[in-house]
Amino acid sequence: MVEMNKILDINPVDLLVTVEAGVITESVSKAVEHLNLFFPPDPGSMKSSTIGGNIAENAGGLRGLKYGVTKDYVNSIEIVLPTGEIVNMGSNTVKAVTGYNFVDLICGSEGTLGVITKATLGLLPIPADRASILSFFKDMTDAAKTVIDIVAQGVITATLEIVDKVTINAIEDFLKIGLDRTVGAMLLIEVDGQKGATEIEADIVLKVCKSNNALSVRKAKNSQERDKLWEARRAALSSLSRIKPSTILEDATVQRSRIVELVEAVDGIAQKYNIMIGTFGHAGDGNLHPTILTDLRIPEEAEKTEKAIEEIFKATIALGGTLSGEHGIGITKAQYLKLELSKPVYDLMEKVKNAFDPNNILNPGKMKCVWNS
Amino acid sequence: MVEMNKILDINPVDLLVTVEAGVITESVSKAVEHLNLFFPPDPGSMKSSTIGGNIAENAGGLRGLKYGVTKDYVNSIEIVLPTGEIVNMGSNTVKAVTGYNFVDLICGSEGTLGVITKATLGLLPIPADRASILSFFKDMTDAAKTVIDIVAQGVITATLEIVDKVTINAIEDFLKIGLDRTVGAMLLIEVDGQKGATEIEADIVLKVCKSNNALSVRKAKNSQERDKLWEARRAALSSLSRIKPSTILEDATVQRSRIVELVEAVDGIAQKYNIMIGTFGHAGDGNLHPTILTDLRIPEEAEKTEKAIEEIFKATIALGGTLSGEHGIGITKAQYLKLELSKPVYDLMEKVKNAFDPNNILNPGKMKCVWNS
Repeated sequence: MVEMNKILDINPVDLLVTVEAGVITESVSKAVEHLNLFFPPDPGSMKSSTIGGNIAENAGGLRGLKYGVTKDYVNSIEIVLPTGEIVNMGSNTVKAVTGYNFVDLICGSEGTLGVITKATLGLLPIPADRASILSFFKDMTDAAKTVIDIVAQGVITATLEIVDKVTINAIEDFLKIGLDRTVGAMLLIEVDGQKGATEIEADIVLKVCKSNNALSVRKAKNSQERDKLWEARRAALSSLSRIKPSTILEDATVQRSRIVELVEAVDGIAQKYNIMIGTFGHAGDGNLHPTILTDLRIPEEAEKTEKAIEEIFKATIALGGTLSGEHGIGITKAQYLKLELSKPVYDLMEKVKNAFDPNNILNPGKMKCVWNS
Repeated sequence: MVEMNKILDINPVDLLVTVEAGVITESVSKAVEHLNLFFPPDPGSMKSSTIGGNIAENAGGLRGLKYGVTKDYVNSIEIVLPTGEIVNMGSNTVKAVTGYNFVDLICGSEGTLGVITKATLGLLPIPADRASILSFFKDMTDAAKTVIDIVAQGVITATLEIVDKVTINAIEDFLKIGLDRTVGAMLLIEVDGQKGATEIEADIVLKVCKSNNALSVRKAKNSQERDKLWEARRAALSSLSRIKPSTILEDATVQRSRIVELVEAVDGIAQKYNIMIGTFGHAGDGNLHPTILTDLRIPEEAEKTEKAIEEIFKATIALGGTLSGEHGIGITKAQYLKLELSKPVYDLMEKVKNAFDPNNILNPGKMKCVWNS
């Protein structure tokens, strides 16, 4: 769909933008920046992902806790049904409850129900002010407790990112920006809003970090310093991927209150299989990205990687979490669906798939699980 | 479901509450108030509506623009399928994209796909501060322009309510609180957030009201004064319903930028049929409630009421709006579905209905439209 890349209409009064499905995510915000507006969903892949792809995966991003995910910003779509009709679904009003909510069903359906060709998306005013805070901790437990306490203080941060020791070292190897290699965890936090509000909220965040034994905590003094902090966080995945020939980014997601347990479980799995796992992610959402660094060309490595992934999924589900917070199921995770869904719900998925796509021509292998295997 | 009325679990760390489907909306917020949390969706019927009903209708409320609607706060549900299975759908993590998004499909499906028995709902911290502003205008046009300008200034208000002259007079008749009967429109606006932010935003709102020729504008000095203003707004429907034997509350919703046109269209229809229509609603969402005051026991009145309603729907759709912003379609609006939906989309609704409910035992007449009539 990459050639369907036009921004068709910008409606600043109703905070809407209409785009073709191949438009790159980042360019949506760029196109409305001069109107002091932005498109909130910000997947890590925003420089390459398309809006159609984001809708099909219901993409998340760093700002999930405060701003939600892609589905929260899709008002209406034009979609080509597998049976050939081109139809519109949804409404460009703020609220609409006419007929079944098919727009939200299409969001995250991974291209199995129709081909999205156009979308009208919601925008928000750019916050007048923001503040970024960087804090280091001796271990992931103190960092995770800080995450819980910040929200408990009534502060819904724009971003609340966690980075573990393996990832901190990988970033320092790559960027050489003077990160302390001895610390166990790092939190990178942004609050945004009206000027008076960000000051109040940044102060609360600073206090909560300190009361959770932060080794250090500082607020970026200006936008250059802030951009530098975020550059470090955005380099997490590329830094990790330089270490070994194969990088497998997972998407284990639990409740915020269970992050400590998930981190411990992932650590245990890394030790058990003697593999390297760097973990970073959107701690405010409980959405972690344990990233396995390995060499899939070596059969023994591939085999233990597969076992480790399965154990990560099982641990996540045992903690009340989900297989995927924002990346989707696709083909590789399809066999694990039965860890999370009951058979009647999976059967309904098949029936709904058949209602939309009776000839099974769209992404036939995706989210397809053999139940009696 | 009214006897399934237990609040089962409150999880303040993850901002979640688990309730049975018969729990009254208002009691959810009351149950978590001591934790400084609230449940944002606030339909006008919050003192009597149940959570199961709210989910089935995807109920809205006064706080839609800033806080969204019911579906934005439903993490997971327990539902009895028409085929007898009791299943869970969704996830209690902040983000989840495992399998089709059935929770959002059930939201607003009006009890046609399953019987909701339990739900885990999202909560938010109670804002530290809020400010209410009351402003009067010579006509609805000035008031509607003010609504547009407030949002254009980057202020997303918690509520932004509009009330027309007919309704102002009805409220004054009922409550006798000294409202000026000669004004053409009233806006009632609330901003909330951190203390510094509400002051900045209230100032912007005051300025925008004045620059749109407000006849008067004032900020409530304290919470008693604020509660009094909201009492007046909450009395709109009950005040109108005292005027004539029959009250028909409609739910026409357009984009914010089209409110003036919708108001003019409704006025024209009232004159054409010589019927009384009071209009109030959630102007920030473009969600108006034109309320027809009539006597359906008189056949001629009933006939012209029906014609007027049809014209209101047609005008709403012609303005790019939707048949229902927050009340749903049910039986009485079902025949109008074809004004808004295309045949292939309606056919998909029937197929999905059949996938869930092959024996058509749940609410069989709801959202059912005879296409070739």
